[in-house]
Amino acid sequence: MNGALLIIGDELLLGTTIDTNSAWLGRRLAEVGIEVKYKLTVGDSPKIIEDELRRLLEKFDIIITTGGLGPTLDDVTKKSIAKVLGKKLVLNERILKAIKKHFQKRGVEMPAINMSQALIPQGAHSIKNPVGTAPGLFLKEGEKWIFILPGVPSEMKAIFEEGVLPVLSREGKKEIRFRTIKTTGITESRLAEILDRTVKEVSGYVIVSFLPRHTGVNIRIKIKKGTEGGDELLKKVEEKFTEKIGIYTYGRDEETMEEVVGYLLTMRNFTLSVAESCTGGLIKHRITNVSGSSKYFIGGVVAYSNEVKQNLLGVPEQTLQRYGAVSQQTAISMAKGIRSLLKTDIGLSVTGIAGPSGGSVEKPVGLVYIGLLSKGKTSFEEHRFLGDRIKIKEQTAQAALDMLRRYLLNA
Amino acid sequence: MNGALLIIGDELLLGTTIDTNSAWLGRRLAEVGIEVKYKLTVGDSPKIIEDELRRLLEKFDIIITTGGLGPTLDDVTKKSIAKVLGKKLVLNERILKAIKKHFQKRGVEMPAINMSQALIPQGAHSIKNPVGTAPGLFLKEGEKWIFILPGVPSEMKAIFEEGVLPVLSREGKKEIRFRTIKTTGITESRLAEILDRTVKEVSGYVIVSFLPRHTGVNIRIKIKKGTEGGDELLKKVEEKFTEKIGIYTYGRDEETMEEVVGYLLTMRNFTLSVAESCTGGLIKHRITNVSGSSKYFIGGVVAYSNEVKQNLLGVPEQTLQRYGAVSQQTAISMAKGIRSLLKTDIGLSVTGIAGPSGGSVEKPVGLVYIGLLSKGKTSFEEHRFLGDRIKIKEQTAQAALDMLRRYLLNA
Repeated sequence: MNGALLIIGDELLLGTTIDTNSAWLGRRLAEVGIEVKYKLTVGDSPKIIEDELRRLLEKFDIIITTGGLGPTLDDVTKKSIAKVLGKKLVLNERILKAIKKHFQKRGVEMPAINMSQALIPQGAHSIKNPVGTAPGLFLKEGEKWIFILPGVPSEMKAIFEEGVLPVLSREGKKEIRFRTIKTTGITESRLAEILDRTVKEVSGYVIVSFLPRHTGVNIRIKIKKGTEGGDELLKKVEEKFTEKIGIYTYGRDEETMEEVVGYLLTMRNFTLSVAESCTGGLIKHRITNVSGSSKYFIGGVVAYSNEVKQNLLGVPEQTLQRYGAVSQQTAISMAKGIRSLLKTDIGLSVTGIAGPSGGSVEKPVGLVYIGLLSKGKTSFEEHRFLGDRIKIKEQTAQAALDMLRRYLLNA
Repeated sequence: MNGALLIIGDELLLGTTIDTNSAWLGRRLAEVGIEVKYKLTVGDSPKIIEDELRRLLEKFDIIITTGGLGPTLDDVTKKSIAKVLGKKLVLNERILKAIKKHFQKRGVEMPAINMSQALIPQGAHSIKNPVGTAPGLFLKEGEKWIFILPGVPSEMKAIFEEGVLPVLSREGKKEIRFRTIKTTGITESRLAEILDRTVKEVSGYVIVSFLPRHTGVNIRIKIKKGTEGGDELLKKVEEKFTEKIGIYTYGRDEETMEEVVGYLLTMRNFTLSVAESCTGGLIKHRITNVSGSSKYFIGGVVAYSNEVKQNLLGVPEQTLQRYGAVSQQTAISMAKGIRSLLKTDIGLSVTGIAGPSGGSVEKPVGLVYIGLLSKGKTSFEEHRFLGDRIKIKEQTAQAALDMLRRYLLNA
């Protein structure tokens, strides 16, 4: 079965909101064998929504819309869909009750404006919204299925998981098999060279894509439709690739670097503390995005000023004066300081120049040092990153976590 | 002039990559008066790209494509566009030279695979890529303009700013006037009620949209095309709205909460330190995303374990035992501790339960306390947030920065 997404909202065209819903839907649909072939974003204009919906209904089996179900005046989705299908909007008492209850739970009266959320196209089934007021809707038009979801990501996801997925799982077939191999510390061109022969070898039944970004290159492997061999084959192809890529592979599919690091710390039974300067807390934020990280992550310090580096982390004044705050010596001293301050097995540190100001000829914006201290081992890395302030922070955090990962693999 | 975006890449349909390019393009284009009316995402399939491009050429003045210009085998954009326009792909020596130079600067030979990046449709103008190898391309077909850009965001943006925008600015007219009012701490329904009369009052010439997300509701005000009054009118309408919304407004357009807080700290000449538990570093990460934040932000501690709260921040063992780590008393004690440890004017702290585990009936997941200490003033807030671990972290960071903002407004 193939599907199309119709994403509705002026704010997405104007760019004041970034659409994360459609990527999430693409992933979840692929997992149950429904391939999104087409994704269209249009504004809150009834005319355009109607025209495009007619076109999509001719071409695709499943159409999922997001957006335009809120209580405010600019929300036009339901009206447009009803019109295309030649149906009326009718008041659904059950939905109205649910919306009233939603407000009662919060101790407030339902604003009159929310009444419109209980209007649905005749014949539509409502899908419960466990976290908000606008329900999802499901319409069957002959062989075509239309799902109508709200645009607020948490509501869209909850309705999809609880109401849409169960239906689709029963109908969809596991046709798409793909895997993402995640790498960091190596360029796209270099990867393409290393993998050149392997890509050619499997090109009869595998489509390979390189997805570069500033924190690393993802490689997507997709087994062509109709290929025999199932998940076994995917596994074999993946192994072929990761063997060539070696240490630069850090994970697969949805796995994040911080999850991998967390897993390795748990396996080794090590505790960690982190001292950050230029990343300003991003490394610790990423580490603590992992549920259960409190088992191995004790805490850390953000030492933005030199005084904090000296007074809290014990970096000697002499080190700062002789080598500067951005130096291998300061990085190592910060790692040592945080490790002994918080009494952890490993101390990790970064210091660098995130820019846009603060750079010089010898120490340009993007120069970063990472320090790592553990029992009997002291190491550091120097990096020179390109990009704006936030990109440099992100590359630095990724490199620091990757250094920790490589250390843990051999520990 | 109206425009359409054609976003190319399997990874965007499969959802392994989130498309941030098109939102960015939408914003930049709107600023020079070009309204994106249509945004289409398709896979790396020549047939679909060709069909859709033909359709878009009939309907829109300006078409911008992103993606599919890399050196690897799955990149098909140029071939498809050339086919639709009835042109050949030809080798451009100047581009080839530039690509070779790009690699030389990095001290490596150009991989043979990158040769294909120098092939362009006959008659296309190349647009310099200041940060990568694939150049942008510009084609004029009668009255229609086609811009072909790479998918890597940093390259796309650099080419757009330096090569596309100058052309468009000359041609485009400032037709769209819009503003985003950013609010936090108030629900969409409540805002809609407060603003009900104002929205109706201006409905003849202004379109208002509510864009809710978990960290706040943005309100977009758009002056209808052809309305007289220009920027003056937009300003007057904005004032009407912010007057009603009051303290819940924290910024406008691209302004972030951390920028506003940074601005206020600079105005008041205050220094800040931050002690975080459940947010794990996110507050400090956001504060340090602002260039120049080292002037007011000294540093802070992430106290994930109780030992760090006690030993480093000086939270009394008794406080932790009697009230628990997640309590107003601990929050205040943490703020006091970080303020005196780093000798800053203001100490800000958060402690809470990000989940999914660790909650209880009395202290459920999402319960958060924020503490703020300054000379002569101690305050705290209690919040109960909904959502997953990361959403709770994000809401907590937003609320803490907002509490700081409101404090600074009155300080």
